Amino acid sequence: MASKQILQELKPSQFLSRPPPSLSLRFFSVSIAVDNRNRNRNHNHRLRHSSSSSSKLYNPVFACRTSRDSHETDSSRKDDDSPVHGLSEKIVGVLGGGQLGRMLCQAASKMAIKVIVLDPSENCPASALAYDHMVGSFDDSATVEEFAKRCGVLTVETEHVDVATLEKLEQQGIDCEPKASTIRIIQDKYLQKVHFSRHGIPLPEFMEINNLEETKRAGELYGYPLMIKGKRLAYDGRGNAVAKSEGELSSAIDVLGGFGRGLYVEKWAPFIKELAVIVARGRDNSILCYPVVETIHKENICHIVKAPADVPWRIRKLANDVAYKAISSLEGAGVFAVELFLTRDGQILLNEVAPRPHNSGHHTIESCYTSQFEQHLRAVVGLPLGDPSMKTPAAIMYNLLGEDEGEPGFKVAHQLIARALEIPGATAHWYDKPEMRRQRKMGHITLVGPSVGVLEARRKSMLREEGYENRNEVAPRVGIVMGSDSDLPVMKDAARILNMFGVSTEEW
Amino acid sequence: MASKQILQELKPSQFLSRPPPSLSLRFFSVSIAVDNRNRNRNHNHRLRHSSSSSSKLYNPVFACRTSRDSHETDSSRKDDDSPVHGLSEKIVGVLGGGQLGRMLCQAASKMAIKVIVLDPSENCPASALAYDHMVGSFDDSATVEEFAKRCGVLTVETEHVDVATLEKLEQQGIDCEPKASTIRIIQDKYLQKVHFSRHGIPLPEFMEINNLEETKRAGELYGYPLMIKGKRLAYDGRGNAVAKSEGELSSAIDVLGGFGRGLYVEKWAPFIKELAVIVARGRDNSILCYPVVETIHKENICHIVKAPADVPWRIRKLANDVAYKAISSLEGAGVFAVELFLTRDGQILLNEVAPRPHNSGHHTIESCYTSQFEQHLRAVVGLPLGDPSMKTPAAIMYNLLGEDEGEPGFKVAHQLIARALEIPGATAHWYDKPEMRRQRKMGHITLVGPSVGVLEARRKSMLREEGYENRNEVAPRVGIVMGSDSDLPVMKDAARILNMFGVSTEEW
Repeated sequence: MASKQILQELKPSQFLSRPPPSLSLRFFSVSIAVDNRNRNRNHNHRLRHSSSSSSKLYNPVFACRTSRDSHETDSSRKDDDSPVHGLSEKIVGVLGGGQLGRMLCQAASKMAIKVIVLDPSENCPASALAYDHMVGSFDDSATVEEFAKRCGVLTVETEHVDVATLEKLEQQGIDCEPKASTIRIIQDKYLQKVHFSRHGIPLPEFMEINNLEETKRAGELYGYPLMIKGKRLAYDGRGNAVAKSEGELSSAIDVLGGFGRGLYVEKWAPFIKELAVIVARGRDNSILCYPVVETIHKENICHIVKAPADVPWRIRKLANDVAYKAISSLEGAGVFAVELFLTRDGQILLNEVAPRPHNSGHHTIESCYTSQFEQHLRAVVGLPLGDPSMKTPAAIMYNLLGEDEGEPGFKVAHQLIARALEIPGATAHWYDKPEMRRQRKMGHITLVGPSVGVLEARRKSMLREEGYENRNEVAPRVGIVMGSDSDLPVMKDAARILNMFGVSTEEW
Repeated sequence: MASKQILQELKPSQFLSRPPPSLSLRFFSVSIAVDNRNRNRNHNHRLRHSSSSSSKLYNPVFACRTSRDSHETDSSRKDDDSPVHGLSEKIVGVLGGGQLGRMLCQAASKMAIKVIVLDPSENCPASALAYDHMVGSFDDSATVEEFAKRCGVLTVETEHVDVATLEKLEQQGIDCEPKASTIRIIQDKYLQKVHFSRHGIPLPEFMEINNLEETKRAGELYGYPLMIKGKRLAYDGRGNAVAKSEGELSSAIDVLGGFGRGLYVEKWAPFIKELAVIVARGRDNSILCYPVVETIHKENICHIVKAPADVPWRIRKLANDVAYKAISSLEGAGVFAVELFLTRDGQILLNEVAPRPHNSGHHTIESCYTSQFEQHLRAVVGLPLGDPSMKTPAAIMYNLLGEDEGEPGFKVAHQLIARALEIPGATAHWYDKPEMRRQRKMGHITLVGPSVGVLEARRKSMLREEGYENRNEVAPRVGIVMGSDSDLPVMKDAARILNMFGVSTEEW
């Protein structure tokens, strides 16, 4: 078993730069948790049949062209001399068909690369755009194996997949990018911390907890507030709970589903900003980093991304170095997102890594020479990586999170989009999810333009945020554009002089 | 008949600023040609059936989600208060499913606007990406009528459609954008000239020809070389023939299929550059122009587009003014391409107009805040127009035209794409046409970057053009970047000094 190989390689003494007590025992419990999970797989794979059509006029068309169905993988093509039609004949299989899969399909359509997705939801966002959609669970072994037969390369849009099957498929010679070993490390947040700590990546102190006694000891060691996290199936803040004092520990653990689920604690990171770096690695192991961005979360969900991050050059360099080093420690091709904390004292600590395109990289579609989605496809099919740098000076991405359930939620989103469409340099993305739910990612808006300051003003105007509108009551005749607050000392005199002459101004 | 209405409105005396003799009679012959053509329609509309699937593993998915099929148009939605999900519920029907339809679908997928296409080819480029594809002729009345029932708005990716049916549909209340009247004017190049001349748009002198005698008279009047053009079904230079002398007239007319087809002549335009402007008009009649580009043709087919055009500001202004005025004279929403000649004496003459997205605007996908395809969709569904300006300083689009038939042609294209992918700021588009033919538009490559000069060097490097490679034999250590030749006087001294010190340079 590949998991055992990992365990053998990872000697307890090497795990952590700051090892918690009794690490080795706790680590083995992770492996058992993986096995338990596999037993509970949801066998809901089923096939799509055209007979479900309700169209009377004529039958809907196929997303894939049946005339090419015989090319289930391009391994036959690779070995002979027949020329490649277009960029690549490799069929890319994606586990998951959410908005990330959808945007992968969009990037693929430019290049005419065939993407097929495996997702249990018939109406998943990627369904209408994929070359083919297999309706089934990406967490079910038999389904994933059947799906893999159709792929030239297998990749993911979520790390919460059945990794044991991926390991088995790799042994059978199926090409998984990134590698199953990477997904195994990342899908367990505790194992991820152990891994990065072992590779000397700076990160908040952490330790596994198995009972209330250990949790209290961790609280004494790290102080409060204390961050308690579930090891697995955690995303968008789900699986995290904060205890402000020892008295809150019990209820926090209950909220997370108890110790049976597998928990660990992290020392609270006194961050002043959250940053992220998308890192791409090609099949030739070349690594390229996208510009460092700032991410702003709302109820633990990514809400706003500002690119580039307004931090000093030294911090950007440090963030890139940490991200580069983190991804260098993992195996396989693709794009990865490295989420980071910038602390008050100028440290960069790794928060977590995603082995796939990420919300913090959506802005790259409009703002970078090569989007994270095109880059991921280039990487996994073995094309050269594209230029990750920005082609516009600045970008702001604003997530359209469900504000309400059902139709009222749709109405709020539509009104916001309607305002966005009036803004120069704004692009609206809508994921076409059939159901609106509160806090659900329904779409996003990207603003690109001359500076983050200008875009921030446009974003506020779009949102009609308090303070911005009020200041607009007297229409400004001069805009004072500042890239950052550091320009304020210089520009405030300009504002003062204009004010002397009664000219209304607006600071951006 | 709408055609008659147009004829009544267009009094012969108003047709041309420089009227050819006996115009009115000739004009009526156009109308007859339309009717003849309609009799020869190809009734090849057929329905797609899922039973044609050859897939054994499972049936392919539908491109459209059957659960929403009941919303055949959004007129029901518009009238009630149910909120719009996303940007627009309007189903956009496109007559034609070639690469333009494909790129419309790509833009639509970001916005989750449903695009359905009508195209006779089952494997047409738009088929895999469209919400639905009706296999049938966009030149067949019954088929277009059936298709129109499914659309909230009907638009085109080609002007060679059955305009009489569009006029009939408009009378039934179907929303066609742009209007049938516009397509009627544009699809007949002679009628187009008459129209623009009547509206005071500068264009090369022209006249209709019905026999060799008239053609010879035209040759005497306009001189040689003389451009002879077919009135209809002309694109990518098809339907054009040049006679260098009176002796060549007969053979040129034979090449074009004889007078029965409907021919006219144009005075040779002594152009030094060909320019183009994409113009967008919203449903509110707001008009926005994209930056003026230079188009370079190869065997009459658009081959290279440089954005912005390297012409003086005055010429750009003039080109924009002519384009704006030309489109103002037409009816309906959408994007339009205005192809122009820049003559030696600094005049701008209109060459022709396309009532749809155009090859000269492909660069906008990567280089402009709003691509021509998103803009067309915004326009026809009634959203506000987006910002057409460039977000990168420069762009070059290079068409991948078939260099050879079949597999050898695919091989050449793939090799070129492989080199393009190594170039920073290059994006490869492949249209996924099942068959490679010489001179066929198979895809395109867009380069974006700091200046047209830099991009031109990259393009030459990609193509391994003679002269460029040779100059590269000694690897340059300094690049001298010039926006245009006007920088040469300043920069040549820099090159001289570097040369004195033995530093190899390269001028961009």
